[in-house]
Amino acid sequence: MKRIALDIMGGDLGISASLPGLNRYISGNDCSDVAFDLFGDESEISRHMAQFPAVSAHTHTVHNTNSNVILASEKPAITVKKGRGTSMFEAISHVADGKADAVVSSGNTGAFMVLSKFLLGTLEHIDRPALVSILPNINGKVVMLDLGANTSCSSTKLVQFALMGQAVAQILLKIPSPRVGLLNIGTERSKGTETLEAAYTILEQIEHMDFVGFIEGTDIANGQIDVVVTDGFSGNISLKTMEGTVKYILAFLKRGFFASLPTKIGYLLTRRVFQALKDGIDPRINNGAPLVGLKKIAVKSHGNSDALGFENAIAVAVKFVRSNFVSSVESALARMKEKPE
Amino acid sequence: MKRIALDIMGGDLGISASLPGLNRYISGNDCSDVAFDLFGDESEISRHMAQFPAVSAHTHTVHNTNSNVILASEKPAITVKKGRGTSMFEAISHVADGKADAVVSSGNTGAFMVLSKFLLGTLEHIDRPALVSILPNINGKVVMLDLGANTSCSSTKLVQFALMGQAVAQILLKIPSPRVGLLNIGTERSKGTETLEAAYTILEQIEHMDFVGFIEGTDIANGQIDVVVTDGFSGNISLKTMEGTVKYILAFLKRGFFASLPTKIGYLLTRRVFQALKDGIDPRINNGAPLVGLKKIAVKSHGNSDALGFENAIAVAVKFVRSNFVSSVESALARMKEKPE
Repeated sequence: MKRIALDIMGGDLGISASLPGLNRYISGNDCSDVAFDLFGDESEISRHMAQFPAVSAHTHTVHNTNSNVILASEKPAITVKKGRGTSMFEAISHVADGKADAVVSSGNTGAFMVLSKFLLGTLEHIDRPALVSILPNINGKVVMLDLGANTSCSSTKLVQFALMGQAVAQILLKIPSPRVGLLNIGTERSKGTETLEAAYTILEQIEHMDFVGFIEGTDIANGQIDVVVTDGFSGNISLKTMEGTVKYILAFLKRGFFASLPTKIGYLLTRRVFQALKDGIDPRINNGAPLVGLKKIAVKSHGNSDALGFENAIAVAVKFVRSNFVSSVESALARMKEKPE
Repeated sequence: MKRIALDIMGGDLGISASLPGLNRYISGNDCSDVAFDLFGDESEISRHMAQFPAVSAHTHTVHNTNSNVILASEKPAITVKKGRGTSMFEAISHVADGKADAVVSSGNTGAFMVLSKFLLGTLEHIDRPALVSILPNINGKVVMLDLGANTSCSSTKLVQFALMGQAVAQILLKIPSPRVGLLNIGTERSKGTETLEAAYTILEQIEHMDFVGFIEGTDIANGQIDVVVTDGFSGNISLKTMEGTVKYILAFLKRGFFASLPTKIGYLLTRRVFQALKDGIDPRINNGAPLVGLKKIAVKSHGNSDALGFENAIAVAVKFVRSNFVSSVESALARMKEKPE
């Protein structure tokens, strides 16, 4: 039996998103080999649980925690100190103690990152985990990292991200030799910062990596790249720009469609296409960003996730547990002859 | 008579985009008060000119230059040295010498930035010009800067961008009190880098500025912000991510529409809406990014501009010249009581 530890209190919507989300997951998926350990305010959980008998049946234990929301502090040590006793901390500890195989939380990203690193530890040669997302592109999917866990990155970290991203694409997207690009403001070798330049020099020397060099924002979704490597600051801004652009376009089209009868009819006829588009790019459907580079599986769910979002974050965790994701990443990294210093 | 100096050789397509672009502009617009000075290889220009009699009529002079393409060097002094005699350098010099009112070029951004700063000079209190774009959002338009001219920025520069962006929104978008946001990876005050934090502290103390604080990538197009302030690295990545996302969505929809007869019919009925969307976000139609903060008007056209793109960059330059843009920005900046150090 695989076990998933869930931080029930985390995120903007807390228990009112996480518990219905878990219910959706259990109702719609084969859970014969999965059980869930819930972390949160026991009385609140039991108050809501009555509505979800299916959840009760698949919930292994409920661990009572305080309901403090944990935010990231400037110093990791303070985050760790303040975190003790919260649902996020206890859920991660549970995995660290070997009592569960993965943890899912919609809580503060910085805190989740610090606590996961502290409690679960990183793989050999990896300084800090990266937040990974699998995004749609013109031909399928693209792996992008880091998306906000590391706001400023040394060249060594960028190289580690490239190695981890390559492993994720090999394992999850089944691409034997993923094309890896380093996000920059131009494709010419001379563009960009010293850090990017240094990372470029290391990456082009790595055997067994199809490093295509610098790429631009326009290349993320163009289907020519399988792994987009960037620091967490640019990655986060890029990802959220995508979300905003999608919202803008859908709002623009909606307004246009409802302006006349022919366009209304046209909309009805093309509705399916729009639904497929929305599903493909829905941040709730793409929710569940693994922190890669840890010794265990930790999945970050969007802070504003609703039930659908939390359901999908759980799905990512279950998929990763079933595919022995961590050991696959580890052996992919070990196969690399050249390791960053 | 207003005069616009055009770098005819710059950009990926060079003369084969710029001359037809100028022809488009002249054919479609009132040019009774505008003349154009062309800079490029004289023999090449005259060879193409035969096709465009309207251009001949409105072209004041053709200045023969060498046809070397100028790239940005690591050191500005080298860019300046290498630049002499190229069409870009000579076109900018023409404006610096008071012989034209604005310059337009599709050449290398870094070189254009260095040469414009060197030859035209910056306004008081402005260290370096910024590349500005006017982008569509849900309610109208949004000013965004910097888009690539300054890859790393001090807090002082970010504050200067905010002041200049505010002035641009007041002048071009006619918004008396534009809402100014600083692009970050979260809206909480504690998020982001030290540089952003320092810029925040200065901006919130500026009177006569509606500073809304940190904003995220999702806020750029949401209609709640009139001016997006960011360093050139994040700005460029964000802008190009928008372009890539739009391409992705349109490609996705096209594929979906052509998959069945009802969706094909639906597409025909909604075509106008798509055309309006495409026009609104077409980088060619939005082409022409002014370098703001200079003593004269310099407009950067996309490196891969076609004739339509170059036409629109010319339109931006003409509009700025006619509205006395530089002195308007200058007096908007002067009205600010608090100046950054």
